[in-house]
Amino acid sequence: MKATILTIGTEILFGTIVNTNSVFLSRQLNDLGVDVLRHITVGDNRGRLLKALQEAYEDCDLVITTGGLGPTEDDLTKETIAEFFGTELVDHPEELEIIRKWFESQGRVMAPNNVKQSWFPKGSVILPNPNGTAPGFYLSDGKRHIYVLPGPPRENVPMFRDHVAPRLSAHEDGFLFYKIIRTTGIGESDLETKLLDLIDNQTDPTIATYAKPFECTFRVASKRATLKEAQDAVEECMIKIRELVGEYIYSEDDKELIEIMMAELKEKGLKLACAESMTGGMFAKMITDVPGASKVFSRGVVTYCNEAKTSELDVKPETLEKYGAISAQTAEEMVRGLNLYSGCPVCISVTGNAGPDADEGKPVGQFFVGLMFCGKVTVKEFRANRNNRNYIREFACYQMVKTVHNALQSID
Amino acid sequence: MKATILTIGTEILFGTIVNTNSVFLSRQLNDLGVDVLRHITVGDNRGRLLKALQEAYEDCDLVITTGGLGPTEDDLTKETIAEFFGTELVDHPEELEIIRKWFESQGRVMAPNNVKQSWFPKGSVILPNPNGTAPGFYLSDGKRHIYVLPGPPRENVPMFRDHVAPRLSAHEDGFLFYKIIRTTGIGESDLETKLLDLIDNQTDPTIATYAKPFECTFRVASKRATLKEAQDAVEECMIKIRELVGEYIYSEDDKELIEIMMAELKEKGLKLACAESMTGGMFAKMITDVPGASKVFSRGVVTYCNEAKTSELDVKPETLEKYGAISAQTAEEMVRGLNLYSGCPVCISVTGNAGPDADEGKPVGQFFVGLMFCGKVTVKEFRANRNNRNYIREFACYQMVKTVHNALQSID
Repeated sequence: MKATILTIGTEILFGTIVNTNSVFLSRQLNDLGVDVLRHITVGDNRGRLLKALQEAYEDCDLVITTGGLGPTEDDLTKETIAEFFGTELVDHPEELEIIRKWFESQGRVMAPNNVKQSWFPKGSVILPNPNGTAPGFYLSDGKRHIYVLPGPPRENVPMFRDHVAPRLSAHEDGFLFYKIIRTTGIGESDLETKLLDLIDNQTDPTIATYAKPFECTFRVASKRATLKEAQDAVEECMIKIRELVGEYIYSEDDKELIEIMMAELKEKGLKLACAESMTGGMFAKMITDVPGASKVFSRGVVTYCNEAKTSELDVKPETLEKYGAISAQTAEEMVRGLNLYSGCPVCISVTGNAGPDADEGKPVGQFFVGLMFCGKVTVKEFRANRNNRNYIREFACYQMVKTVHNALQSID
Repeated sequence: MKATILTIGTEILFGTIVNTNSVFLSRQLNDLGVDVLRHITVGDNRGRLLKALQEAYEDCDLVITTGGLGPTEDDLTKETIAEFFGTELVDHPEELEIIRKWFESQGRVMAPNNVKQSWFPKGSVILPNPNGTAPGFYLSDGKRHIYVLPGPPRENVPMFRDHVAPRLSAHEDGFLFYKIIRTTGIGESDLETKLLDLIDNQTDPTIATYAKPFECTFRVASKRATLKEAQDAVEECMIKIRELVGEYIYSEDDKELIEIMMAELKEKGLKLACAESMTGGMFAKMITDVPGASKVFSRGVVTYCNEAKTSELDVKPETLEKYGAISAQTAEEMVRGLNLYSGCPVCISVTGNAGPDADEGKPVGQFFVGLMFCGKVTVKEFRANRNNRNYIREFACYQMVKTVHNALQSID
C-alpha cells in the first residue's frame, strides 16, 4: 500500500504546535511495510481539504488523517470527507451516549457543541477513542481507504495501535524489514562517501543516511515477499557495511548511546551519580526518562550557584576563587565530593558556560566533564562550536554519556 | 502573499526526524503577514516534487522549501526546481571556493560529491549559508516566487532571518498583529463555548483556540492596512475577551507559566531550590532552560533512591518504612530537609509514581508536591489520569510550577 498522511489543523499552519502525529504515523506505517509518499497539512478549509484528498489518491490508496474532529465550529473534517466520498453524515446516538459518559468520568459537563462528535459519514466503521471525546472512523469505497483520527497524540496513538494497524496488516502485500544503524565520530557526507558503491549498486536493500545531533545514523531497508527474505537481505548487506564503516558503529538496532550505557551499568552492577552545573538537571532527566533507571541511577545534584557547589560537594572556595566555577579543577572537586557523599563507583560532573554570554571570561560553549570511575579521576575539556544554549547543554549531556560509555568499555 | 511550505526529505516520511522547519517557517511567515495555506512533505522524488510545486502555485504565489540540498546522491531538489521553472543548473566556481573554505575552517577535507552544491538554477539569487555547505537560492518568474533553503535548522534559520524575511517584507501588503493568550483551569470546548459569540460574529480579529498539554491557549489575530490598526483591533477584542474568560487567563503575551513564575521570584528577590524524586531532574532542567536562571535558582537534588532521600534530605528511614517514599509525609520531609541544607525561602519537592507499574502499591500517576514557602509547609496530592511516564512527569513539573506561582500570588 502507498499512503499519504493528511494533517488538518490551522494551528499547525500558524506554527503554534509541532506535527508529531506525522512522525509517529510515518514510523508505524513504514514498519508495517506501507510506503509513505507524502505528508500534507491544511487548515480547517473545505476547498483545500478536498484538493489534498484529490492529490493523495492520485498515487496512494491509503490516507490517514489526524485533527479537525474537535467539537469546535472550525472543525469540518467529517463533513468534507463525507462529501469527497459522495455520502452524508448520519447521527449515532449510541456514540453520543459514550461521549456523555466520558465527560461524566472526567467529572465534567458535556458542552452542547460536543454533540457533533457523534455524527459520521454513512457506511463508516467507527473507531472508539477511550482517551477523548472524538471517535475516529474508517471509510472505504473498495479502492480508496481512509482512516480518520483525532489530533491529540494521547488519543490517536492508542487508536492507531488498536484499530488501524491490525486492519492495515490485513491488506499488506510484501514485508519490510529495516535496521537503524547508529554511528558516532563521522559526518554525513563522509559516511555517504564510504557507502557510495553499496548505495549506487543496489535497489534493495536501500541505504539512507541521516545527520542527527552529534552523530549520524543510517537505515538499511529491504522489502521482500517474506519477512525472512527481507531480514536475510539486510543482514547480507550489513556484512559489507561493517567492513566499510564498522569502526564508527555503536548500535545496530537503533538503541541510543544512553540506553546502551545504562544497560552496561546494569550488567556490571555499577551505580551512577551525577553533579551538574551548566546542564542544570538535564543529564539526570535524560537518565530517568528511561523506565527502570532506579536500578543504575542513585542520585543527582544540581549545584547551580557556587555556594551550592561548596555546601553540597565540598568544592573549595579557593578553587572557585582561583580557577573559577568553569574549570577543570572545579569539575574534579565536584566529582570527588559527589563520590564522597554518594559512595557511587561511577560519578560524573559537568561545569561550563551554556551562554548566551561569556562567563568568568570563559567562552560560550566551553565545558569540563569530570569522571570518577572505580577510584580514578579524569577531567576532559570540551567546546561546543555554536552559541545556542539548548544545543550546548545537549551536547554536554551527550559527551557525559559518551564519557561513561567509553569508561565502561575500558573494563570489558 | 499566500505560501506553501514544502519540505523535501525521505527521512521525514520514514518518521526518523521531526519536521521542525515547518513550525519555524510557519510562525515567521505568519508574523510577516503571509498566509500559510499548506505544508507538503515529499521524498527526494522528482515526480512528486513537481506535483507538489504544481499544487502549491494553484493558490499560492510563494513557496519556501527546506531540505534536499545535501551533497548526497538522492538530493535532487535543485534539478527539479530548475526543470519546473523551465531553466537549467549552472556552475558557480566562486561558491565552490566558499564551500571548500568552509570545510577547511572545520578542519575537514571536502568530499568530491560536495561539488554539486555549487550548481544553481539559471537566474537565481544565491543565499549564503555561513553555517553549512549548502547555499540556498531565490528564484522567481515574476508571479511565482520560491526560496530554497537547506534542511538543518541551524543553517536555514539564520538564512531565513538574514535573506528571506527582508525580501518578503518588501512584497507584503497588509500587516498582521496577533496575541497568544494563555489560560489554565478550563478545557478547549468550554473555552470555545464562552467565546462563541465573539468567534461567530467577526471575521477580523479572528480567534482560534488550541488545546495544549495541561492548559488551553488561543490566538487573537488581525490583519489591517497598518500595524497600528491591527493592534487596536486586537486590543479592542481583548476587552470583550477579558470580560468572558479573564479569570482563566494567566498570560496575554504567550509567556509560559514557568517564565512568569521565575520573573516573579526575581522581582521579589526569592531563591528557589527543588528536591525531585519521580521527575528525576526534569523540573531543575526546565528552570535552567531559561537563561539567567541562576538569579532565582539555587540548587536541586535528585534523590532517586530512598537512601539518597535519607542522606541528602534527612528523610527519616521510619517515614519511608511506614508511609513509603510515595507519600505526603516523605514529600514534607524532603522539602524540610531541602530548606535546611539550602536555606532557600522557596523549596519545592515531588515524589510519586511515574509508572509504568504500581509502586509500593501506589497507583501509576499518583504524586505529592511539597512546598516550603517563607517558613510554611504545605503538601498537595495529585493524580495524572494517564499511564504515560513522560506525560506524568511533565504534568508533575507543571503542577510544581503552578504551586510556586500560586504561592507567589498569595504574597502580592
